[in-house]
Amino acid sequence: MTDTITRKRRSGGRSGHAVRRGSSVIEQLPWSLPVNIDRPTEPLSPEGVQRIHDTAMVILEEIGIEFLNPKAVQILRDAGCIVNGENVRMDREFVMEWVRKTPPSFTITPRNPERQITVGDGHILFGNVSSPPSYWDMEVGRKVPGTREMCRNFLKLSQYFNCIHFVGGYPVEPVDIHASVRHLDVLYDKLTLTDKVAHAYSLGKERVEDVMEMVRIAGGLSHAEFDASPRMYTNINSTSPLKHDYPMMDGWMRCAARGQGCIVTPFTLAGAMAPVTMAGAVAQSLAEGLSAIVLAQIIRPGAPCAIGTFTSNVDMKSGAPAFGTPEYMRATQMTGQLARFYGLPLRSSGVCAANVPDAQAMWETEHSLWAAIQSGTNMVYHAAGWLEGGLIASPEKFVMDCEVIQQMIRYMDPAICDVSDDGLGLEAIREVGSNGHFFGTKHTQERYTTAFYQPFLSDWKNYEAWEVAGSVWTAERAHVMYKAILEEFEAPPMDAAIHEELLAFVERRKAEGGAPTDF
Amino acid sequence: MTDTITRKRRSGGRSGHAVRRGSSVIEQLPWSLPVNIDRPTEPLSPEGVQRIHDTAMVILEEIGIEFLNPKAVQILRDAGCIVNGENVRMDREFVMEWVRKTPPSFTITPRNPERQITVGDGHILFGNVSSPPSYWDMEVGRKVPGTREMCRNFLKLSQYFNCIHFVGGYPVEPVDIHASVRHLDVLYDKLTLTDKVAHAYSLGKERVEDVMEMVRIAGGLSHAEFDASPRMYTNINSTSPLKHDYPMMDGWMRCAARGQGCIVTPFTLAGAMAPVTMAGAVAQSLAEGLSAIVLAQIIRPGAPCAIGTFTSNVDMKSGAPAFGTPEYMRATQMTGQLARFYGLPLRSSGVCAANVPDAQAMWETEHSLWAAIQSGTNMVYHAAGWLEGGLIASPEKFVMDCEVIQQMIRYMDPAICDVSDDGLGLEAIREVGSNGHFFGTKHTQERYTTAFYQPFLSDWKNYEAWEVAGSVWTAERAHVMYKAILEEFEAPPMDAAIHEELLAFVERRKAEGGAPTDF
Repeated sequence: MTDTITRKRRSGGRSGHAVRRGSSVIEQLPWSLPVNIDRPTEPLSPEGVQRIHDTAMVILEEIGIEFLNPKAVQILRDAGCIVNGENVRMDREFVMEWVRKTPPSFTITPRNPERQITVGDGHILFGNVSSPPSYWDMEVGRKVPGTREMCRNFLKLSQYFNCIHFVGGYPVEPVDIHASVRHLDVLYDKLTLTDKVAHAYSLGKERVEDVMEMVRIAGGLSHAEFDASPRMYTNINSTSPLKHDYPMMDGWMRCAARGQGCIVTPFTLAGAMAPVTMAGAVAQSLAEGLSAIVLAQIIRPGAPCAIGTFTSNVDMKSGAPAFGTPEYMRATQMTGQLARFYGLPLRSSGVCAANVPDAQAMWETEHSLWAAIQSGTNMVYHAAGWLEGGLIASPEKFVMDCEVIQQMIRYMDPAICDVSDDGLGLEAIREVGSNGHFFGTKHTQERYTTAFYQPFLSDWKNYEAWEVAGSVWTAERAHVMYKAILEEFEAPPMDAAIHEELLAFVERRKAEGGAPTDF
Repeated sequence: MTDTITRKRRSGGRSGHAVRRGSSVIEQLPWSLPVNIDRPTEPLSPEGVQRIHDTAMVILEEIGIEFLNPKAVQILRDAGCIVNGENVRMDREFVMEWVRKTPPSFTITPRNPERQITVGDGHILFGNVSSPPSYWDMEVGRKVPGTREMCRNFLKLSQYFNCIHFVGGYPVEPVDIHASVRHLDVLYDKLTLTDKVAHAYSLGKERVEDVMEMVRIAGGLSHAEFDASPRMYTNINSTSPLKHDYPMMDGWMRCAARGQGCIVTPFTLAGAMAPVTMAGAVAQSLAEGLSAIVLAQIIRPGAPCAIGTFTSNVDMKSGAPAFGTPEYMRATQMTGQLARFYGLPLRSSGVCAANVPDAQAMWETEHSLWAAIQSGTNMVYHAAGWLEGGLIASPEKFVMDCEVIQQMIRYMDPAICDVSDDGLGLEAIREVGSNGHFFGTKHTQERYTTAFYQPFLSDWKNYEAWEVAGSVWTAERAHVMYKAILEEFEAPPMDAAIHEELLAFVERRKAEGGAPTDF
């Protein structure tokens, strides 16, 4: 664990600017919170939006959602919902009244305040892959269970790449750590290896409370300071169709009560857990998500919430989930239209069904990432490292995805479309005329090194030069690169006293037995 | 040449419907002319559009374009342009007056009228890779010069895939055929192996005239019928900056005079043949393109023209061209805005810099294809099979690209976003409630086989099943698939007398020596 010990900020005037770390391996874009400047793609007419909204409302009014958490049921009953056992119904005026209390955007501030993110407000932010139980890399050459070491490596990559704005759940599930204390070890690793926004799984009270406490300690915050504004977030999935389970609701309510980021993402696979038609699947997903957001707003009006979409389709031959499909893209765009209708920040994902980091992996991932852009998504989960429908995390895929994400960030730079006199370059055109080239002009020379995006992984050599360099395909190049990055990785600095306190907390909670594993 | 001999239409009621050919290898989408239902992405404000237009007009008014073709110069001089040697200047009123004569859309009708395409009118159509001098496939394993056999194989793939709407230039340059007769052999192959819209290179009078004659013969048309509406098309590139060369202009004028499709695509590499700033590169590209369209309209008012964009950037390290970059995407979108401003159909491309059909190839190609969609492109050149900046044609890449194109065609199907009662499926949601799944519902059962796009190349198996099936990466699967398609390929039927006439024409022109090769 030598790379997680407390380090002094390096000399050289860069203190606080962790963005240049590791620049000896690759040149990357600086840390920034990109703004999505594209108008969203909107497949639905205003009437279409209204019809999906109406359907979601009828689901909530007439069919209801099951909340398998008595406390949640009680809160909703007290607020005026119609409760029938675990089934909770609420009318549309009630839903809209509470949903409207959600802020249209919110910040989340991790232990390094320079890594603060704004969810909403036109931003599109990217996070690492979360929760695969398995790992694949080119050296191992097969699918193997995740370990703490693998998990730590992904955390390092998540910290290293400036295009990764927040650190989602376990980038790979470290099954070599007992489930009762897994959250303690991984959060310790996450909070020491990264200084970016962290996530807590809502899997029972102990896990959420432990993570909130560790984030508080890592931030050097009092309890009041922690509660005052979002410092971390949770993401819950409903148990589609139309159900919220106990532990997810428990964590959700705890995070809402303390004003931490609350993201609800139904996993509505059309034809399986939702209607086979995409508009129906989207409506159901919205009903499930909105019911959780209503609960959060009742608990703490103004609680920072976002709605997520994970609506996709299945393979008609096998029933297996598919990702990055045409149907997935349109469902994401439709959800984006409805998220704007409700005034809610949106979460979607960077996903694929491919098993290895090959061509298919990238066309599916590209489709999901473009859907994120087209839908006005604010938080892109799983944006780096995801394979096999989320069952595999791969470091090669992580590096490849970061190349693509960087290109999308650059794509959002309005400077590309500069139509000032400088951008039009008429004088350079006049100077060169019909007989010459622009390499040597002052206009080119002044801009040459900054005019274009420079990739770190794409190989733009011609075939012959590429062949001389070893004929290395992209996945292999990504493999070499991730190893080099890990080799040079330096953990972000952490105050020694805080580190001490964090370690002591982990030790104490381990001694207490951690969290129950019978959920 | 056994597969190009005249065949009788197969029995079974499918006569004329070549779309199902080869369906025993893969299930593919039927032939259709997809309509791009997405609103274009518009990075420029109306003022930005005006500023780029103004710059293009100043280029035409004050700087001028060199036409290295005396006949073109004479026509432009006679129409009122200011001529100074080969430099031709024209004022903006003049430009706009002629450009406005271009039809906003036009059809091109190949020998099989069921393969007629409409360029413009909201359609997005895809063509095969054109003009790479070299070939790569997984079996050869290296870059080799193109041959007639390779070229024929790509023509078969172009015919086979319903998502390929038109057959561009030589899909690989068959350098084993002497340049003087290459156009005769390849056009013979193209017209017998495919029944889709064909292209003529504007490389001197003989080539264009020969191709027009062969297309006329293959279509069983009189000269008057051929001249009456577009039956094929040419694509010319200007010699950027600001120059049109002799043979391109010669072919351009011949095609315009006979009312065939005329597409002009400047290759304005920012920082090399155009300003390093994208808006300037776009303005220069437009000036070059518009000058050719003006010429075509003077020759034949209402001539079917489209404007192409091939504006990209170079690698800042090596000066090599790059494709599918963020700058490329924005340049394509900006050109789309200007094409709509001028009322012209737009051509762009599916391109990449990658040398092999790997992950990079697909993210770059995806970027260029999304730019085509976002820009409102009507004809997507090079959409299948392109590698190494257009220097390599690859059959594996061809098959991979067709998978992606099919997904984009399905993406444009408004049925995905059906918000009718059927699409919303409220009754199914009510029926399943919180405890069950949708697999067994009537709503699902009735739609299960048609609800979702079914890929032919994507592998959606889970890892374990994929491993049992041999752990085959996408490029390898594409390799097996292209071989199987070629194995089963059947050429579209051609009337025996027409075939005879076509052969006789080729023989005669070969005996006459073909075309000069000293251009």
